[in-house]
Amino acid sequence: MKLSKEQKAYISGFLDGDGSIHVRLKPNSSYRFRFQISPSVVFYQSMKEEKYLFWLKELIGRGYVRKRKDGMIEYILGDMESIQYLLECIKPYLRLKKKQAELMLRVLKLKAGTKTASDFLKLAKEIDQFQALNYSKKRIQNSSLVEKVLREEGFLAP
Amino acid sequence: MKLSKEQKAYISGFLDGDGSIHVRLKPNSSYRFRFQISPSVVFYQSMKEEKYLFWLKELIGRGYVRKRKDGMIEYILGDMESIQYLLECIKPYLRLKKKQAELMLRVLKLKAGTKTASDFLKLAKEIDQFQALNYSKKRIQNSSLVEKVLREEGFLAP
Repeated sequence: MKLSKEQKAYISGFLDGDGSIHVRLKPNSSYRFRFQISPSVVFYQSMKEEKYLFWLKELIGRGYVRKRKDGMIEYILGDMESIQYLLECIKPYLRLKKKQAELMLRVLKLKAGTKTASDFLKLAKEIDQFQALNYSKKRIQNSSLVEKVLREEGFLAP
Repeated sequence: MKLSKEQKAYISGFLDGDGSIHVRLKPNSSYRFRFQISPSVVFYQSMKEEKYLFWLKELIGRGYVRKRKDGMIEYILGDMESIQYLLECIKPYLRLKKKQAELMLRVLKLKAGTKTASDFLKLAKEIDQFQALNYSKKRIQNSSLVEKVLREEGFLAP
């Protein structure tokens, strides 16, 4: 189903108000470059509004709803194709999270073209920019750690 | 300036995600029936997004922005006419807060037609319904208190 302009605008407002666009870099030795890249677009609500998030999921036609232990539920788009589809649709209407959407689209494109460890490090540096855009205080996984691991494991010259 | 359909839909999504529609009943002996009725539609953001709330204020063309002491800012529509204007505009696009919007419009209409203490008590009972819709835990000012005060002060038969 194709989203109407009004539906795209509504989703943008809701995401600006109560959603999140981010990418996590998770250490995972089973991945070629030792980190998993985990992008997501998430909409939050309290458990009482479960029906609403399922309505939104039907409207967008992708992703899944997950119950958290703290009484919140999340509607998550976690795969590249769904995220690209949604963000391309709503980008013209986003305000607060427009930069995050643009960064996400850049990161996903870069990820698809990543071949070498050096490409991967560039990608990790792009992902770092989410932290500034999202005012995040924690900076646990970032490109410095990626660089350190890639050197230690011989992917990059020491 | 007239809002476009997309603008109305965007504002609805943002209000559904991060806004509030409510009415407070505040004890105030300078008012005829001893309570002030204070309706509001509020949009919240952290101080860092001040510009965004001013953009929204310009878009809607009414209301004011207020800085709170806790680092949040609020864009508030607090007068009947502005609230009626906005809610009539966005009602078709609201989902999560549609019932609150309809209740607010009913309350404002009822308020405009309030003449007697008995009308005022009916109005207070309508206002009570916000607490259930907004899942509020506090129930400090409600129609029972209004009724008690109106009886004590001789507006209603004891």
